[in-house]
Amino acid sequence: MIKNRLVKNAKKIDKFLINYLKKQEYSLLINPMKYGVISGGKKIRSTIIFDVGKIFKLNQNKLINICAAVECIHSYSLIHDDLPCMDNDSIRRGKPSAHIKFGEASAVLAGNSLLTLAFEIIADKNYLINSKLKNEIIKSLAFCSGHTGIAGGQELDLKFENKKKNLKQIVRMQKKKTGKLFSFCFYAVAVMAKKNIKEKNALSNLGDEIGLLFQLADDFLDIKGSKKLIGKSIKKDNKKGKSTLINLIGYEKTYKYADNLKKNILLKLAKHGKNAKDLINTIEFILGRNF
Amino acid sequence: MIKNRLVKNAKKIDKFLINYLKKQEYSLLINPMKYGVISGGKKIRSTIIFDVGKIFKLNQNKLINICAAVECIHSYSLIHDDLPCMDNDSIRRGKPSAHIKFGEASAVLAGNSLLTLAFEIIADKNYLINSKLKNEIIKSLAFCSGHTGIAGGQELDLKFENKKKNLKQIVRMQKKKTGKLFSFCFYAVAVMAKKNIKEKNALSNLGDEIGLLFQLADDFLDIKGSKKLIGKSIKKDNKKGKSTLINLIGYEKTYKYADNLKKNILLKLAKHGKNAKDLINTIEFILGRNF
Repeated sequence: MIKNRLVKNAKKIDKFLINYLKKQEYSLLINPMKYGVISGGKKIRSTIIFDVGKIFKLNQNKLINICAAVECIHSYSLIHDDLPCMDNDSIRRGKPSAHIKFGEASAVLAGNSLLTLAFEIIADKNYLINSKLKNEIIKSLAFCSGHTGIAGGQELDLKFENKKKNLKQIVRMQKKKTGKLFSFCFYAVAVMAKKNIKEKNALSNLGDEIGLLFQLADDFLDIKGSKKLIGKSIKKDNKKGKSTLINLIGYEKTYKYADNLKKNILLKLAKHGKNAKDLINTIEFILGRNF
Repeated sequence: MIKNRLVKNAKKIDKFLINYLKKQEYSLLINPMKYGVISGGKKIRSTIIFDVGKIFKLNQNKLINICAAVECIHSYSLIHDDLPCMDNDSIRRGKPSAHIKFGEASAVLAGNSLLTLAFEIIADKNYLINSKLKNEIIKSLAFCSGHTGIAGGQELDLKFENKKKNLKQIVRMQKKKTGKLFSFCFYAVAVMAKKNIKEKNALSNLGDEIGLLFQLADDFLDIKGSKKLIGKSIKKDNKKGKSTLINLIGYEKTYKYADNLKKNILLKLAKHGKNAKDLINTIEFILGRNF
């Protein structure tokens, strides 16, 4: 059932993005952009936005632009992370990475265009939400995507390679690289639900933690998974000297750390009662693949 | 006098950006970002925004966030254009290009972060303009920067290398690659001045044309200039098989084309009377370097 929900939501976002791009002037970059953002991915972040929206009884139609924007940002970051000068990965979602398929320059430009498209989709005049809330969402998306978020996290990740880093440093890096976009998913919904600053920050921190948990789950998968199963190269973290908690404190201790984090997250979500049921199911389902 | 005005405006924008970044969380990318956007450039686009603002009697303080955002976008595009997978230029503004100085990955990420910062600066809650106008400006900035603008223009530029392209195709490419950001400068001020859609589009088209004219002036400089004078590698367009009007129809005919374009632009600006004096001076000054 949860699997169906994920598939249904992903299709909804794909459809939105296809229609959005169809209305725009044609450009040579549309193909590599679509290759990056349409189909293939589970679009977990969109389902999380819908699920958090459910807690606050927000209609999906009011959130769909935020979902589409987040998927654009996520796809941009994957396209750029795979570049030869970054993680140099040639497979993504079971297919050749964008730079393998379209060349490096087009991959960089398609990534940039998806990043830009995210802001366009939220600022769009046909997205009928209060202008002030829209501004606040755009500001937060920028904060979570730039040097204070995803891009800054990726820079730390690369700089940490083959260096001895402590737990605090690795957690900080992973919260930036992966956590910040999840944090945005929660924050944006809180803005839409007109929550006060304290509540917005609490939800935002919860997003950070969920992002970290997903990153740890991904690290477990990197150790255990098969290439066929996850559609990307595995055991690369170790080969590349990536700074992961597993490489620092070992599998068992990381598992325990992640398990505690998960319990803590579920405890916080329990406060929202049965409205958080879908969100909890989504988190359990995603983690279920790995631990 | 016009030179002083350019220097004064550039300093104002530098100061704004330095203060803005100072208030943000520190990240490793701040240095390459500053390297790209602070000092060195003439910040022509900012002066143009102020000059257009003068036509409509808009205070510089209401426009400074737009200027800073435009300079972030411009710098991001230069950092990425210089990458080995793009134009592979090792000198920019008389200094080593960002990827030479900081490495390719940091240059890509710093570029991305400047792109993101542009949206953050406009969406900022301390930028006290009407939220609806703010969203319209953000939408336009995204449209002019992404696959429908700068990024799309750069893709065409690369795809046109060593190919036979006609005048219409080259003009279209250059209007996207260089024109669109100038077009944004005019459009954003028109939004701030609450002009109607017809006036906004007319100003936007004028920006497109001025951008094309500057691009042609840059192409003349590429032929005539010395490395010391312009601080970047010259005569590269020809070596690289770039599609320029000069390569297509020759220097003389391009000069005539540009001269007609300039006359046309000045005629349109004359309609705004003495309020457009600064803008005309700025355009003449910039072109004066080359033709």
